[in-house]
Amino acid sequence: MPVMAKRGLTPHDEDFSAWYNEVVYEADLVDHSPVRGSFVIRPYGYALWENIQRELDAMFKATGHENLYFPLLIPVEFFEREAQHVEGFSPELAVVTHAGGKELEAPLAIRPTSETIIGELYAKWIQSYRDLPLLYNQWANVMRWELRTRPFLRTTEFLWQEGHTAHATAEEALEETRRMLDVYATFARDFAAIPVVEGEKTEGERFAGALQTLTIEAMMRDGKALQSGTSHYMGENFARAFDITFNDLDNEQAYVHTTSWGFSTRFIGAIIMAHGDDAGLILPPKLAPHQVVITPIAKRNDADGAERVGREAARVADALRAAGVRVKVDAREGMSPGWKFNEWERKGVPLRIELGPKDLEAGTAVVADRLSGEKTSVALDALAGDLPDRLERFHERLMERARSFRDAHIDEAHTYEELVEKVEHGWVYATHCGDPESEAAIQEATKATVRCIPLEGPSAEGTTCVHTGKPSGYPRKVIFAKAY
Amino acid sequence: MPVMAKRGLTPHDEDFSAWYNEVVYEADLVDHSPVRGSFVIRPYGYALWENIQRELDAMFKATGHENLYFPLLIPVEFFEREAQHVEGFSPELAVVTHAGGKELEAPLAIRPTSETIIGELYAKWIQSYRDLPLLYNQWANVMRWELRTRPFLRTTEFLWQEGHTAHATAEEALEETRRMLDVYATFARDFAAIPVVEGEKTEGERFAGALQTLTIEAMMRDGKALQSGTSHYMGENFARAFDITFNDLDNEQAYVHTTSWGFSTRFIGAIIMAHGDDAGLILPPKLAPHQVVITPIAKRNDADGAERVGREAARVADALRAAGVRVKVDAREGMSPGWKFNEWERKGVPLRIELGPKDLEAGTAVVADRLSGEKTSVALDALAGDLPDRLERFHERLMERARSFRDAHIDEAHTYEELVEKVEHGWVYATHCGDPESEAAIQEATKATVRCIPLEGPSAEGTTCVHTGKPSGYPRKVIFAKAY
Repeated sequence: MPVMAKRGLTPHDEDFSAWYNEVVYEADLVDHSPVRGSFVIRPYGYALWENIQRELDAMFKATGHENLYFPLLIPVEFFEREAQHVEGFSPELAVVTHAGGKELEAPLAIRPTSETIIGELYAKWIQSYRDLPLLYNQWANVMRWELRTRPFLRTTEFLWQEGHTAHATAEEALEETRRMLDVYATFARDFAAIPVVEGEKTEGERFAGALQTLTIEAMMRDGKALQSGTSHYMGENFARAFDITFNDLDNEQAYVHTTSWGFSTRFIGAIIMAHGDDAGLILPPKLAPHQVVITPIAKRNDADGAERVGREAARVADALRAAGVRVKVDAREGMSPGWKFNEWERKGVPLRIELGPKDLEAGTAVVADRLSGEKTSVALDALAGDLPDRLERFHERLMERARSFRDAHIDEAHTYEELVEKVEHGWVYATHCGDPESEAAIQEATKATVRCIPLEGPSAEGTTCVHTGKPSGYPRKVIFAKAY
Repeated sequence: MPVMAKRGLTPHDEDFSAWYNEVVYEADLVDHSPVRGSFVIRPYGYALWENIQRELDAMFKATGHENLYFPLLIPVEFFEREAQHVEGFSPELAVVTHAGGKELEAPLAIRPTSETIIGELYAKWIQSYRDLPLLYNQWANVMRWELRTRPFLRTTEFLWQEGHTAHATAEEALEETRRMLDVYATFARDFAAIPVVEGEKTEGERFAGALQTLTIEAMMRDGKALQSGTSHYMGENFARAFDITFNDLDNEQAYVHTTSWGFSTRFIGAIIMAHGDDAGLILPPKLAPHQVVITPIAKRNDADGAERVGREAARVADALRAAGVRVKVDAREGMSPGWKFNEWERKGVPLRIELGPKDLEAGTAVVADRLSGEKTSVALDALAGDLPDRLERFHERLMERARSFRDAHIDEAHTYEELVEKVEHGWVYATHCGDPESEAAIQEATKATVRCIPLEGPSAEGTTCVHTGKPSGYPRKVIFAKAY
């Protein structure tokens, strides 16, 4: 009973959006659910998230943070205590009005983010400068009732981590905000092979209630940007709203300075769109659920040969596991090797090993590289020694490919006309005055927004705003791009 | 500015319930939240949960299960598809009626458990016998609107894992149900040092919709039982309700057989109440956030001494970490060593190391054992070699203490009067007919319930029900006990 091969994907040059939707379902990352805008994250997608979690969590702990868990439900009135926060989040709340068969006296919101309930507890936990800094993080689900949803990119429920810290001084809190942005950027580069750009959001794009929002922006293969992680400095805004004070060294009462920073399942969308091609996913080896898949190949009606090949595949897999490689043997029956190759190609497995009776005789195996498409014959006994290094180089090549692509798709505009033209094809550096009305007008005309004021990049010195002709609002040229 | 020592705990012989409430707050495991029945799990409590998760998750994966994630919200009407399930869970649902500023067309419940939404997806994913077994698990938050709540034991929101599997035959599904019960029992014994009893629930105590519910029951130090993990065989109940069918080997359509199994933050309550004493927690070393806490001690106004002691504490900590020990150096200023000792005693750290100038001169450190209370002098250079073994023996002694306590508090009753008398002091084996009305009458009179029909224990052969005089309903005597 042969299994039908799935149809090919829409070429991503032709319709990137269709390509994305096909990939997420056909690579078994997600499925629809009966609840509008909520998706099931299937095992292959969830394994990616587990790998992201493990690495990020280790980085959080290495920078002194501890995990904890706050309640899912937050009294709706809490959101009203911080004026900008309520404006930003109220329209998207999902609200529990009934529980235990009765109407609640006061409605409870499913957390869209937890600053408010955390503020309430921090006010209780923080008394003295000795209690600071408070460096906490939680891994949780959150909900924002979005109208248009897309798997990973915009979903009513999503999984994330939210770090929430409190500090004695603005300086320390600003350092923390930057430190966690750098953690995100380092993670994106070193584990996901995505050369993100670090920068600061303009006032209009800040988190609701923040004085500063830092962001990492990733370039997708259609030239658009994806905001991939943000880190916020709240100043005393939440401390004042929730009365989080401490006795300082001089025994004077002062407000703490807080930060928050978040990274979500949205990043899986970034991985898909930063690396994928017309055959499907290409996964960065350090996060791939399977770094290597071994497909044993046997002739029909050759039970002996099948057993020998199966035994050798298991032996190679054990040797690779011992070398620290995440490896899977695909011994499924009723599917042709070609069908399996297609599946693992679509699922973006970095290296495939094909192992048939002839290979066995020659004492070799064929290693297929998902990025270059090359097939190399490698001696069986050399595999465990060779593959960890090959995976490391795969990561570097993937990073280099993404960096080249990014750099080829960032341009600079000196006039508004140039901006309008160039932003159709990628990201554009341009001087901007910082006026929110001008930002809005540019977005209206081009669908592009200011992604960030980059921490590094061309200086704006001696230039004027491409849109208004006014002086630059920032020390550097900003990055305009269309975005997810 | 000296920190005030916290007051002592209520002795647990005097008021076990007051002792429990004091311990959970004063050991910084939880805090109240502004939402009734929801608690904040503080870093020290959450670190326990992370350790539980890590070990259980490895056991699930070693038995072939994969993780995935289903939506938080479930259409309320889904619960109505399985008659017993809706009866069991409807009264406890928290319901979202409004989202995104509008009233929803159909209300959505926050999951109390996910059989229904998972059933809907399994019906889509399972077509052929080749798709079976489906062995999935999710780590998630769930909500059951309880009236009376207690930290960890009964909370409106709690964290858990729920495994959901589908099989071609009843036999395979029953094997899985038992396999996962054994995983729970092994975990409880080997990691938490809790000698749980494995058994089957009577019909009245089964999970809503299950044909068989297996349980692990743990004995608390007040002689009560705590149900600590359950594994359910659903037969075809959910398959029929959600139309989960497959083409079998003969190409005939058949219903799958499903199981589910869950383990939650409730187990933290079991750890507290199975091991704690009047001084606070006693944590099993394999799950303790800190297995060893080192307190450097220095004389006032001896900065040089303080520096030498601090340096040596850091060196010992590094050596212990390299030996695989989770170790913390408590270098906080402004607190006396005695205050710190009390705190780590209350927090149940298995081994404490005290390191002062005199110890340094002698080349030794004092190792204090939380279980025995003994203090031993150990050569500094021997610590890293000695402590891993000492922690292993701590685990064994803790297990032995719990086993002795359990065995001393299980008795057997041959008459109803004996049952009534003995169940005041612990667990009681007695023959029962299996009649639900008799079970209810016994509960009414004694507040004790049938905890389980144990998988091992005294045979009921030749005996009759202590309550009704009718023949035994089960091959073994059941266990009666009061329970949390």
